[in-house]
Amino acid sequence: MSKKDVTKVILSEEDIPKKWYNILADMPNKPAPYFSSMTNEIATSEELQAIFPIELIKQETTTDRWIDIPNEVWEMYRHWRPSPLYRAKGLEKMLGTPARIYYKYEGTNATGSHKLNTSIPQAYYNKASGIKRLATETGAGQWGSALSLACNHFGLECTVYMVKVSYGQKPYRRSFMQTFGANVIPSPSDLTQCGKSILQKDPDCTGSLGIAISEAVEDAATHKDTNYALGSVLNHVCMHQTIIGLEAKKQLEVLDEYPDVIFACCGGGSNFAGISFPFVMDKLNGKNIRLVGVEPTACPTLTKGVFAYDYGDTAKVGPIAKMYTLGHDFVPAGIHAGGLRYHGESPIVSQLYHDKIVEAVAYGQKVVFEAALMFSKSEGIIPAPESSHAIRAAIDEALKCKESGQSKVILFNLSGHGYFDMAAYDNYFSEKLVDIEYSDDSIKESIKNLPDIKE
Amino acid sequence: MSKKDVTKVILSEEDIPKKWYNILADMPNKPAPYFSSMTNEIATSEELQAIFPIELIKQETTTDRWIDIPNEVWEMYRHWRPSPLYRAKGLEKMLGTPARIYYKYEGTNATGSHKLNTSIPQAYYNKASGIKRLATETGAGQWGSALSLACNHFGLECTVYMVKVSYGQKPYRRSFMQTFGANVIPSPSDLTQCGKSILQKDPDCTGSLGIAISEAVEDAATHKDTNYALGSVLNHVCMHQTIIGLEAKKQLEVLDEYPDVIFACCGGGSNFAGISFPFVMDKLNGKNIRLVGVEPTACPTLTKGVFAYDYGDTAKVGPIAKMYTLGHDFVPAGIHAGGLRYHGESPIVSQLYHDKIVEAVAYGQKVVFEAALMFSKSEGIIPAPESSHAIRAAIDEALKCKESGQSKVILFNLSGHGYFDMAAYDNYFSEKLVDIEYSDDSIKESIKNLPDIKE
Repeated sequence: MSKKDVTKVILSEEDIPKKWYNILADMPNKPAPYFSSMTNEIATSEELQAIFPIELIKQETTTDRWIDIPNEVWEMYRHWRPSPLYRAKGLEKMLGTPARIYYKYEGTNATGSHKLNTSIPQAYYNKASGIKRLATETGAGQWGSALSLACNHFGLECTVYMVKVSYGQKPYRRSFMQTFGANVIPSPSDLTQCGKSILQKDPDCTGSLGIAISEAVEDAATHKDTNYALGSVLNHVCMHQTIIGLEAKKQLEVLDEYPDVIFACCGGGSNFAGISFPFVMDKLNGKNIRLVGVEPTACPTLTKGVFAYDYGDTAKVGPIAKMYTLGHDFVPAGIHAGGLRYHGESPIVSQLYHDKIVEAVAYGQKVVFEAALMFSKSEGIIPAPESSHAIRAAIDEALKCKESGQSKVILFNLSGHGYFDMAAYDNYFSEKLVDIEYSDDSIKESIKNLPDIKE
Repeated sequence: MSKKDVTKVILSEEDIPKKWYNILADMPNKPAPYFSSMTNEIATSEELQAIFPIELIKQETTTDRWIDIPNEVWEMYRHWRPSPLYRAKGLEKMLGTPARIYYKYEGTNATGSHKLNTSIPQAYYNKASGIKRLATETGAGQWGSALSLACNHFGLECTVYMVKVSYGQKPYRRSFMQTFGANVIPSPSDLTQCGKSILQKDPDCTGSLGIAISEAVEDAATHKDTNYALGSVLNHVCMHQTIIGLEAKKQLEVLDEYPDVIFACCGGGSNFAGISFPFVMDKLNGKNIRLVGVEPTACPTLTKGVFAYDYGDTAKVGPIAKMYTLGHDFVPAGIHAGGLRYHGESPIVSQLYHDKIVEAVAYGQKVVFEAALMFSKSEGIIPAPESSHAIRAAIDEALKCKESGQSKVILFNLSGHGYFDMAAYDNYFSEKLVDIEYSDDSIKESIKNLPDIKE
């Protein structure tokens, strides 16, 4: 059996990384600091400490290349890590491509997505700093599930503001969180000032991720024993996810392989960061490799947004970040990849994109679900709608290889399974999906109200 | 780190067994032969060939101890096997027990349960015999999902008769099967004679597993290119599942452990067979070990049924088997462990139970869900309602150890996850679950109409 003739590569537990990779050590241009939405000045550590523990604030800015994974976190990682790396033999055969396609599968854990990689350390550091409760938002429910499980493990209370329309449409995600003891609240709610003021204007408001973030941040900022946790975007979140790419690199080394190109879906950016940053490190050291974030045309933050300072949430209570953004008022169309519906983007990914170190591409959801079906049938795993964006891009690259005859090595991140998303598949089967594209003019309109920050 | 201080044991791919274990080689008393429901005589191989391929019929009766796993099947097993064996450290801590609890987790594959272990070889042998299509039934949807995936892989068509009430209540299981190209039909349907005659009597009939089996068997028997596939009960199905116990034994050997007692939920019996038979072999060779099947009080086949010849399906079209049964007319209460609602029991498991080699116990669903919650919170995996029966029994054994101070080694099979069963958890949270127990009189009534078979 040839080394490359494998179905999957499983590392042993000792191969689970003991350190996260911090790309801030290697970036030619660092991301800009956060600004306070109260003062329009650079946010002080004290201001950030109203909602984050000091260890995570340090992780936002440290330029140490390697950060130790605490033992308590590593012990939890052992529950499902190392995650498998698959050779997509079935997909290759279906496509008839000379390319070798690999995917890292982050859906084998209890919450079914990569989010657990960061919810566990976030709960851990908050617990260690004496915090009693975490508040967060969730849209599709992946992040809320992951934080609920982590809080339950470390003995923290957990309050999840769930976008109201999802609260109704995804009752099983809600019960999932409740199983782990979380308090799940449909947002907007009357528990916060910003929730109340939104309901006053529009009692039937079905909510948005931006509103739910505002409520969770306000909850944290107004309760001394409560902090806020975010499932993507922030530097420390991206760093926690690098465990994905570090493992994938080791697994490919076992096969004597190195990727020519990596694809990952890109919403807030942490999933793309997770698989790609350890390879970006190589690229900055001269390696020839392409790293491509894949986003929906219905929320084209990198491909159509602007690189500017913007609020992270609707009510402007959270910090201001320099990032690619569609404007904090932008409400993306109701597509099924709920995890990719955020107006902003990780400041680090934004800076790397601005510096042309990483690339981005956007797809409509119809071709994305077509790819999801091809993958299900050929690989036997039903992918999450979010992850299917990466699959679409990988398939297109493999088809290009078929035309050119090149045997490229393609790697993508299968960030989660789609077993909670079967309603979306139903809609695809019954041809109810529509593709959304935004004109340049409508984007111009949505970025009118950016904050006025002086660097 | 002590050998036993592990979170999980993962074997390498080379450790996936190359042979299934056939317990017929070692049983002191073999199970009785199948009888034909047409003639009330022993079913001939020709009669069975109307619905099964010859290789599987041979596997029903061979007394060879080890049966080679075909390479094409083994290659598919590689996709997710070896499955992990976990030490339930979180649960032990929650219980404060000196017992060491281990569980084998069969929920990491694409369909989320152990059923894929047999759907793959069944599809393979049918394909190899020139069959074009498989017909089957499904209740909870686990089996239909597993067979759909296997048929898709081997290029077979798949027709799934899905109990009508589940078809409506579990639309996501239905779309799961459709994703893999299966034709899913609500049962009773007007596509079969037995479906039609049931609908004539009761147009609003919401179906049952027994009816769906009748329809699938009739479909197979009346179409030359079509065979029937069953997800449990039969000898070959139990044998395919022994891969679970064979792996578990190797994994415990790595830790220098041997179980004092094994628990698995018991519906048709294949899941219990899978984890326990390789250890029953040891017991028959003198090892001191207890093997306990756990069933619901709402369908107490072993604990309250009779050991007798009975039909496998409602319309009496399939073979007659000697087994523990509640009577083919028995319609178990609508509990949430749909996979355990079958009136009969594997003939092998029945014979072993009759010979007092294995044991059985029954639980109501409330205490089962209580155990499921304890497990979710302490181990981070939401278990299927079926598997939770084994968890309940394992917890009770561990609590006995706490009283007695014994450090027993407890192993159970976590046969699947509960991510498609969150509605059941919702009902538990809102205290809507009821426990069903049947009186001896009502069981007497349901076993009135057994066939008259002369051995």
